[in-house]
Amino acid sequence: MLVIDPSLDQSGLGEEIVSSFKRTSIESFKFTNIHPNPICFDIDKGVQVAKQNQCDVIIGVGGGSTIDTAKAIAVLCKSDGTAWEHTQENISFPKETLPMLAVPTTAGTGSEVTPWSVISNPDEKDKRALSTCSLFPDVALIDPELMISMPKWVTASSGIDAFSHSLESFISSYATPYSKVVAKESIRLAVRYLPEAVANGNNLEARSQMAWASMLGGMAITHARTVVPHALGTAASALFDAPHGGSIAACLENVLERSFVGNFEIFAQLSGTLDESTKCFPLHERAQKCSHLVRRLLSDIDYRVRFGDFGIKEEDIDSMTDWLFRSSFWSDFKVHPRLFTVEEVHQIIQECL
Amino acid sequence: MLVIDPSLDQSGLGEEIVSSFKRTSIESFKFTNIHPNPICFDIDKGVQVAKQNQCDVIIGVGGGSTIDTAKAIAVLCKSDGTAWEHTQENISFPKETLPMLAVPTTAGTGSEVTPWSVISNPDEKDKRALSTCSLFPDVALIDPELMISMPKWVTASSGIDAFSHSLESFISSYATPYSKVVAKESIRLAVRYLPEAVANGNNLEARSQMAWASMLGGMAITHARTVVPHALGTAASALFDAPHGGSIAACLENVLERSFVGNFEIFAQLSGTLDESTKCFPLHERAQKCSHLVRRLLSDIDYRVRFGDFGIKEEDIDSMTDWLFRSSFWSDFKVHPRLFTVEEVHQIIQECL
Repeated sequence: MLVIDPSLDQSGLGEEIVSSFKRTSIESFKFTNIHPNPICFDIDKGVQVAKQNQCDVIIGVGGGSTIDTAKAIAVLCKSDGTAWEHTQENISFPKETLPMLAVPTTAGTGSEVTPWSVISNPDEKDKRALSTCSLFPDVALIDPELMISMPKWVTASSGIDAFSHSLESFISSYATPYSKVVAKESIRLAVRYLPEAVANGNNLEARSQMAWASMLGGMAITHARTVVPHALGTAASALFDAPHGGSIAACLENVLERSFVGNFEIFAQLSGTLDESTKCFPLHERAQKCSHLVRRLLSDIDYRVRFGDFGIKEEDIDSMTDWLFRSSFWSDFKVHPRLFTVEEVHQIIQECL
Repeated sequence: MLVIDPSLDQSGLGEEIVSSFKRTSIESFKFTNIHPNPICFDIDKGVQVAKQNQCDVIIGVGGGSTIDTAKAIAVLCKSDGTAWEHTQENISFPKETLPMLAVPTTAGTGSEVTPWSVISNPDEKDKRALSTCSLFPDVALIDPELMISMPKWVTASSGIDAFSHSLESFISSYATPYSKVVAKESIRLAVRYLPEAVANGNNLEARSQMAWASMLGGMAITHARTVVPHALGTAASALFDAPHGGSIAACLENVLERSFVGNFEIFAQLSGTLDESTKCFPLHERAQKCSHLVRRLLSDIDYRVRFGDFGIKEEDIDSMTDWLFRSSFWSDFKVHPRLFTVEEVHQIIQECL
């Protein structure tokens, strides 16, 4: 079963893949029922279709939403429960899964190398992660040529997602020497190549380096998780269907500005990775520079968004903080280098409206 | 079965471990039949003992030779063939193996994260690698406190082995973006911390960083292999029982000096990793500086050895080059950034006598 992003399918890519399978006598069919912030019911539908057609392999071709949908279908194909049921901690995943091949067409989620599929339930206005090692794809084909046609705003928003994975994992208290090596390389590449990829979408060198940065970001969060920006962004997506990359970009700078006092050393290292030339400044100044350097990147890629752009208003702040405290993403707050009170979280969202 | 370095065992560590097992009612016994440049017959003996005693788990505690011996025993415990037979390409490894736990006490081979066990056959004066994914240990416990008691010369020679893994994988034509990220970090750490670890053996920070550098080096060669210095060093070990680290140190500088003309760019990157301050020099100068920077490291750790120190003489050069061309280590020459003729190999060995 070829799980393919509907707009890529419309561009003719889906038929091209299906025909190439036909030429080698491989029977296949397309599944295009996919939405941004992937919806649990789409996955249930996909599982049903895959079962009916006795699929042997699931192939996901598209951005993070498509890959997450395809991964969840592959893992749940031998199960009776729904996707949403499997987001509960006490429900175990089936031991048998279908082989899964991921072909990312954006440079953002790094989902091709993570054990998660983050899904939404519009009925419950909730967003949760499926989490199991069998969600690691068996094979990932990462071809930057498939990313050439990405529109500017998708390049920017998915690029900020990748960048933020590496940045957040770097300052997470789960960070390990290994995750930091990987994250540093990814941060360095994103700062260097994301502006070029946005400015000149057909710059294959920039596309390649961003594809690589995104994959490293996926490896980094697999080891060290994300922190507050991803948690806040997920709240915005869960309740207001805000796009993933945009909702992170909306709060990243503000969160960093408030956080460096929690760990001068790690933020100083972060600044040195964002811009080597900062290494000559004193510790406090380096640590403080992080938010400025992130602002510079967002400005380089002309990507300035606010929570307000997604329809979030002053009166929604309470429901966002409530959701955060109830959700599993609250754990991201616990590994953030500065521990925020509810009042502070309230204030951050307000300032980012 | 506890496979432990005989000198560590004599220091009392073996009994300490066996007693701690006893306290939790785990039956265990020691195997200390281990030699530097591990000997295939020791492994056969170990397999026999493990079979007789119906061992469930193999634990290796020691340097590279001990870990390689323990890994090979674990993989061959369910096999009828000898270790040496399994170095032949057409012989397959048994599917069933024993779980294996590696506890390295030196920072050098990185064997705790590689799929190889390099063994010698003194009867045939030959050295070959066992190579299979099941040679990856199941668990590696890397505790730098175990490395505090390493004598100066072991610290130096094992450190140069680790350093050389990363350096050689970095310039190998098998290098990947991933292996290069890992290798760069390892090179940087070795240059920074190996002199401190040699100068002050009880500097735990230096020991920790070298343990980490060594593990990264193992990861790097698993992806990108080694090149000419390891091949030459292995010839010296195979024919003259030269110590592994020393035989590499004996030729490293000379090989680099002759090799940079094969790939200015990669050697310039290598210099930038060995010493950031070289980044301001022009390409040719940077590339050329590598051998000088390696000489500086060898001088910092007071480790200057020559092939002659291992009893190798002018009249032995032909047998070394002959051995290289016949052995599987010849493949290391093919991925080296400069392709050497037989005459050039002859000359390198001569200059390093």
